[in-house]
Amino acid sequence: MSGDLGPRVAISASQKFLTQFSDVDLLLVGNETQLLSLLSQSKKLHARITLVHAADVVSMHDDPLLALRQKKDSSMWMALDLLRNNDVDACVSAGNTGALLAIAKFLIKTFPAIERPAICKSMPVEAGSTYLLDLGANINCPPDYLHQFALMGSVLAGASSEVSPRVALLNIGTEQQKGTDTLKAAQLLLQEDPRINYVGFVEANSIFTGAVDVIVCDGFHGNIALKASEGVALFIANKISKIVKQNLFNRCLSLLALPLLKRLQHELNPSVYNGASFLGLQKTVIKSHGGADEKAFLQALVVAREQVIHKVPARIQRVLCEAEGIAKA
Amino acid sequence: MSGDLGPRVAISASQKFLTQFSDVDLLLVGNETQLLSLLSQSKKLHARITLVHAADVVSMHDDPLLALRQKKDSSMWMALDLLRNNDVDACVSAGNTGALLAIAKFLIKTFPAIERPAICKSMPVEAGSTYLLDLGANINCPPDYLHQFALMGSVLAGASSEVSPRVALLNIGTEQQKGTDTLKAAQLLLQEDPRINYVGFVEANSIFTGAVDVIVCDGFHGNIALKASEGVALFIANKISKIVKQNLFNRCLSLLALPLLKRLQHELNPSVYNGASFLGLQKTVIKSHGGADEKAFLQALVVAREQVIHKVPARIQRVLCEAEGIAKA
Repeated sequence: MSGDLGPRVAISASQKFLTQFSDVDLLLVGNETQLLSLLSQSKKLHARITLVHAADVVSMHDDPLLALRQKKDSSMWMALDLLRNNDVDACVSAGNTGALLAIAKFLIKTFPAIERPAICKSMPVEAGSTYLLDLGANINCPPDYLHQFALMGSVLAGASSEVSPRVALLNIGTEQQKGTDTLKAAQLLLQEDPRINYVGFVEANSIFTGAVDVIVCDGFHGNIALKASEGVALFIANKISKIVKQNLFNRCLSLLALPLLKRLQHELNPSVYNGASFLGLQKTVIKSHGGADEKAFLQALVVAREQVIHKVPARIQRVLCEAEGIAKA
Repeated sequence: MSGDLGPRVAISASQKFLTQFSDVDLLLVGNETQLLSLLSQSKKLHARITLVHAADVVSMHDDPLLALRQKKDSSMWMALDLLRNNDVDACVSAGNTGALLAIAKFLIKTFPAIERPAICKSMPVEAGSTYLLDLGANINCPPDYLHQFALMGSVLAGASSEVSPRVALLNIGTEQQKGTDTLKAAQLLLQEDPRINYVGFVEANSIFTGAVDVIVCDGFHGNIALKASEGVALFIANKISKIVKQNLFNRCLSLLALPLLKRLQHELNPSVYNGASFLGLQKTVIKSHGGADEKAFLQALVVAREQVIHKVPARIQRVLCEAEGIAKA
């Protein structure tokens, strides 16, 4: 019901999602009248869509803790409650990130061994994926949090691959002596853990080279890296639009070069990388970007489906229990 | 003598710089034989170029503290020593950042009121400039460091303008309650200082919108924002190159659309924003990107010239003394 663009985007993405994948059913949680009217505007109600009425909405500006206390009739709460009751396998939302995290922590809970859930997202690289976490759930992270993030990120990156994912810590230099005491202590934990293929410190430009598979950092650093990247990408997209307008249309080059620039804009579209995971929760909760368009929201649904298929939460539980076992031994 | 590309880039940029600006002379400090051979390869020795021989070089991988102790015959040391002796008005280097900062702090010194120098750079925005500092000189910054960075950045941004620069603190949200205790304490200092036009917290995507003139952060956060931005810009530049090669040349569109893509590549070229200042030092020291090409190194020289003309160090001293006065009152 929320996000920057409201339920329209989620509904059109849902219809495409069901057409693409025959192995999924969808429950749409929100104001039934509004959803029905949107569904009737676009196409007939898909046979694999079920509507679940929710009287309230968590807005993008609601305080997360107030939402947690007062919005039990909201679409967000009700969707997560369906997940808690095993009525669904995953929950996807484009709404208020803080509220989604707070309500998910309360209803879905983390596995007992896990200190804190982390927000994790696949970043654009030349080939494959590089997962970055945490993206903002935890501002202050002692070394053991970063260690758990490394384990969880490694599980996610390795869920669909046979190769052990290369894991790095985000720092402001690659040399051993660089960075904070927290990072140096975290590095020791990662080096000593046989389940982590730790490759060292990386700088933030390495997020986009594909040199490593998982980059671990605290939520403050991850958020800055993510937002700075989005800022530059938007800045460049605007430049391209401007040049297209000035040169192409004015100078009649449009027909020849447009496909080319369209392809560029398509490849730069951040929607390809939409869908952040709340790792450490007992079930799959995916956060779509608030400003996601149909294609981007569809991608968030695809991410949710993959994590259900690969049983990511159960794998995380298995690895983290091993970790506990080792710690006790 | 150093940087990723050696002295060739600095020399060709120097010749262009002297052609563009009649009010400057240049001293090139380095291995005289090598410099002379490079100068003779390109053009005749420019009348306003003086060569100063230095027997040693600080390499990009030298430990800054070892360079400070052992490399007194290096081009970097000797160039900064010329600055210390008032033989020159500014020093520009594409070499080892840590060594340049360490030797500059030792030889040039900060003004007495200044706790730490900060690295500050103009970032690409739609119109004008947004200055970001610190970019890596100080990992841990208590609130009073951030306060001084705000004052120094404000002086730099305001040196060539009549309007009071809008100053913001980098955070992971714009709401008052967001961020660390350090940021909240720094915010109070900035709000209470009448010489700072403080506008609030901004997120890292605001670095590129031009919504504010100065963004203040600790060196760890600034470095992550800068490197992540560079990483995305390079990623996109590579995408563009790939598309140009695949489509343009293979499909014979090259003649028509090339000027367009060239313009785009030109506008995305980070060289336009090269030249980081070490603010807080008693004289002007400018760090060029290690990988700077001729155009980028030229821009670093232009930045140095402008800061000399606008007497940025003296202005910083004036404002920071005022700050001390207020603190004592």
